[in-house]
Amino acid sequence: MSNPKKIQSLRRNFFSYRIYLFPLKMAGYARPDRHPRPGRPSNQDRTMSLVAVGTVAFDDIVTPFSRAERVVGGACTYISLAASYFVKPVRIVSVIGDDFPEETLDYLRAQGVDLEGLQIKAGEKSFFWAGKYDRDLNSRDTLDTQLNVLADFDPVLPEGYRDAEYLMLGNLTPQVQMRVLEQLKSRPKLVALDTMNFWMDTALDDLLKVLKKVDVLTINDEEARQLSGEHSLLKAAQVIRNMGPKYLVIKKGEHGALLFHGDDMFFAPALPLIEVIDPTGAGDTFAGGFAGWLAQSGDLSFDNMKRAVIYGSAMASFCVEKFSIERLKGLTPAVIRDRVQKFADLVHFQI
Amino acid sequence: MSNPKKIQSLRRNFFSYRIYLFPLKMAGYARPDRHPRPGRPSNQDRTMSLVAVGTVAFDDIVTPFSRAERVVGGACTYISLAASYFVKPVRIVSVIGDDFPEETLDYLRAQGVDLEGLQIKAGEKSFFWAGKYDRDLNSRDTLDTQLNVLADFDPVLPEGYRDAEYLMLGNLTPQVQMRVLEQLKSRPKLVALDTMNFWMDTALDDLLKVLKKVDVLTINDEEARQLSGEHSLLKAAQVIRNMGPKYLVIKKGEHGALLFHGDDMFFAPALPLIEVIDPTGAGDTFAGGFAGWLAQSGDLSFDNMKRAVIYGSAMASFCVEKFSIERLKGLTPAVIRDRVQKFADLVHFQI
Repeated sequence: MSNPKKIQSLRRNFFSYRIYLFPLKMAGYARPDRHPRPGRPSNQDRTMSLVAVGTVAFDDIVTPFSRAERVVGGACTYISLAASYFVKPVRIVSVIGDDFPEETLDYLRAQGVDLEGLQIKAGEKSFFWAGKYDRDLNSRDTLDTQLNVLADFDPVLPEGYRDAEYLMLGNLTPQVQMRVLEQLKSRPKLVALDTMNFWMDTALDDLLKVLKKVDVLTINDEEARQLSGEHSLLKAAQVIRNMGPKYLVIKKGEHGALLFHGDDMFFAPALPLIEVIDPTGAGDTFAGGFAGWLAQSGDLSFDNMKRAVIYGSAMASFCVEKFSIERLKGLTPAVIRDRVQKFADLVHFQI
Repeated sequence: MSNPKKIQSLRRNFFSYRIYLFPLKMAGYARPDRHPRPGRPSNQDRTMSLVAVGTVAFDDIVTPFSRAERVVGGACTYISLAASYFVKPVRIVSVIGDDFPEETLDYLRAQGVDLEGLQIKAGEKSFFWAGKYDRDLNSRDTLDTQLNVLADFDPVLPEGYRDAEYLMLGNLTPQVQMRVLEQLKSRPKLVALDTMNFWMDTALDDLLKVLKKVDVLTINDEEARQLSGEHSLLKAAQVIRNMGPKYLVIKKGEHGALLFHGDDMFFAPALPLIEVIDPTGAGDTFAGGFAGWLAQSGDLSFDNMKRAVIYGSAMASFCVEKFSIERLKGLTPAVIRDRVQKFADLVHFQI
């Protein structure tokens, strides 16, 4: 018989969440504001800053259809690359060894990712994860995990990072996430945090402490159920928001995402695709698009949060179309806008 | 490890699809046409008729939270009751023994369900199914199946049924579904068919024959993959529509439903609920709401098909809130409209 708990723990084993960092510099993303909302702040008036925290890593990936060896991965990599299409600089906090490809770092820099907070440890190796996906691409086994530089990672925020307006804490130990928060000079406008069942199992007290300090939590449906002890996602959302985050995003992978705030609820579909090559990094890419959109727009209304969920979902839909970060390279505002329009068309109806 | 095929086959074992029949008579359902579409036919100008085929049965149901014994169930029961809120008469084709509660039959009659095509076998027992749901309510085991009157069911369409404009062939053997089609005097405006993996495994040739004769097929995601041999639902939809049905609805349970036609695609979410009591009959209720809406509106445009999927989803969202058909009793146009509005609010965003 099936064992949903086991499947779930395989699905999102901790080191399926990695962080890589890649600075991408693009012209500012032009928001396709076809429904102008008077009174919203103009992007031109503000200096936007987004700090992204997480792993930067190498992955070996096996899917039922193909495989990739020692490709660039990591939560911070996906977050920063996705966010770079909306806001710059994206300032990353992570650690690598001296084995990491310089060309990838150059690419990230060129995309507007600030690498000052990326520690490079001479003579050490970058974090490595190997995983294999099941037939349906919804679950995966971890084949190998080599912490390397991540084993004793102590995040240090450069001075220029400490007044971050937007902070995306990618999946890492809750202690490291808290260490980053402690180094800020002032409370950001928005703190979002991604976590997973691994930390609920092994560091729940620390997780609950850091949850008190964040505005947005992003987790998947099974994790929401685990964290809340409630099966109904509606009930789970209420319990979790009493733990601290005013906003909750429940990611359901190929089944879309739910956003909760107060009495409001929003559902964003996932876009059916001709072919999914590799789901790795989709959740991180979602987080990057979500946080990047918010940082770019500076609008924390629920209507704009909904847009952020759609932009995050759109970026994730690109991510899974190729291995590693390949499909996230060289996107244009027009291509992203077209993808977002597909989401709008997909769910539009009139009663 | 998980075995998706096994879970799937447990999830929709054939006799989880039953047919009951209950005539409900209500004032004509007033379509909340807040976006009037000039040129659409007025309901008042047409005589609408919907024929629903399927099982009428007793169920024993065990969920992780509760249980129900010998309650009214069956695909045709759910289909006809859901459809009765949109169109009447709903003419049913099914079979029961003389053990079936007269009050349920009276209730269906009162709701506008025409029972002329319901065979009542003296001295025989109605079809019985017993099932137990897993913790997540997404999979179930069949505990008992007693075919009884269904063992040698030969559907006979009364004369008044043979010019049906809309036909909903609920899940049954493809041979029985074909027998119904053969008795029609003329081609209905729309024939919709529900089936499942059981028939793909045991009667594929017959299923393929009947598929050539239908306009709409409703199946779930795993069945779409099985029938097409394609993992991508986009590819699966293309393959299946080459088998006959111009329209394909892929039901994803708590994850919503997809509608495909030509190059068009539409996604309807499922409504997150505070509590799901019993998923039994949700797929049939969806089919009833879907077909009922189409029969009522007489509009087969893609835009109206989208509405039909939403109305079907809304009716299914009621169904799961109580055991058996209890939550489907006593609904009003206003209550249904409010539920549909919740679907609209859930996915609405502006880019």
